Amino acid sequence: MLKFEHTRHKPPTALKEERPLVVACSPLRSNVNLSTIFRTAGCCGVREIIATGNAKLVNKIARDGAESVNLTVKNSLPPVLKKLKDEGYALVGLEQTTHSTPLAEYPFPKKTALVVGSEREGLSQECLNLLDAVVEIPVWGMPFSYNVATATSMALYEYCRQYPAG
Amino acid sequence: MLKFEHTRHKPPTALKEERPLVVACSPLRSNVNLSTIFRTAGCCGVREIIATGNAKLVNKIARDGAESVNLTVKNSLPPVLKKLKDEGYALVGLEQTTHSTPLAEYPFPKKTALVVGSEREGLSQECLNLLDAVVEIPVWGMPFSYNVATATSMALYEYCRQYPAG
Repeated sequence: MLKFEHTRHKPPTALKEERPLVVACSPLRSNVNLSTIFRTAGCCGVREIIATGNAKLVNKIARDGAESVNLTVKNSLPPVLKKLKDEGYALVGLEQTTHSTPLAEYPFPKKTALVVGSEREGLSQECLNLLDAVVEIPVWGMPFSYNVATATSMALYEYCRQYPAG
Repeated sequence: MLKFEHTRHKPPTALKEERPLVVACSPLRSNVNLSTIFRTAGCCGVREIIATGNAKLVNKIARDGAESVNLTVKNSLPPVLKKLKDEGYALVGLEQTTHSTPLAEYPFPKKTALVVGSEREGLSQECLNLLDAVVEIPVWGMPFSYNVATATSMALYEYCRQYPAG
């Protein structure tokens, strides 16, 4: 008998309810990064991504994430964050800042907007000022910074670890 | 006073000792994926990646990960796994299989070789037969499978969460 056998393409884990989790992105330079975030978000059961700037999906990369995750594109992030806050979302930035919490130690509020910075500049100070919390992923070696899609994937994984059933 | 201020480019978290963690990759179709894994591995303090097939790094993507992580390229994965097992590594596959453990519930042995499958076929049955354990990342929605570099990043994050100081 085989110890481990492939079970690819099996049905996904069911969620008890829709995840009240939104990803809000600063203007990204790379639509490859945005599309990678889309694919991961789709797999994690996230229903909405709000992107800013010249956001366009690369379908080959986003895969069916582009169909199951709703994409809204806005000009600028601060008004988006203010609206999300009004709707009751905790605004949780993903960044290296003062007063940040290591990602693994942060108990995510269930209703969270994960706020992601751009590749080079990260989150603007105007956005940082609107946040309720900042989570930071420890770095132990070169090149000392995670790719934005990688960091976002880790944060989505951590949120889902805390809410495995939705 | 600003609540959150950038601390980018700060020194990395110190490790008490080198991480006894190795990543062993099946032949990947995409050197972009391999290079993305390199950048993440570098940030996580991983010192060695063993790749197979036509592995070549894209330096723009791997960044300085290419300098701090040692790359060994071999023809085929099974002999690599046998050697790692002889050296005392637990062989932990990242795959969707029978008898897998959800990633977040798996207590990683400190001395681990994370064994990664290729984009389309995943891990071969020959490789699966050599593994000590398989970890699986739950999927809650479309497109029902994580990109290989994304999945590897989540697994590296989880290992580091369990061993934050090395």
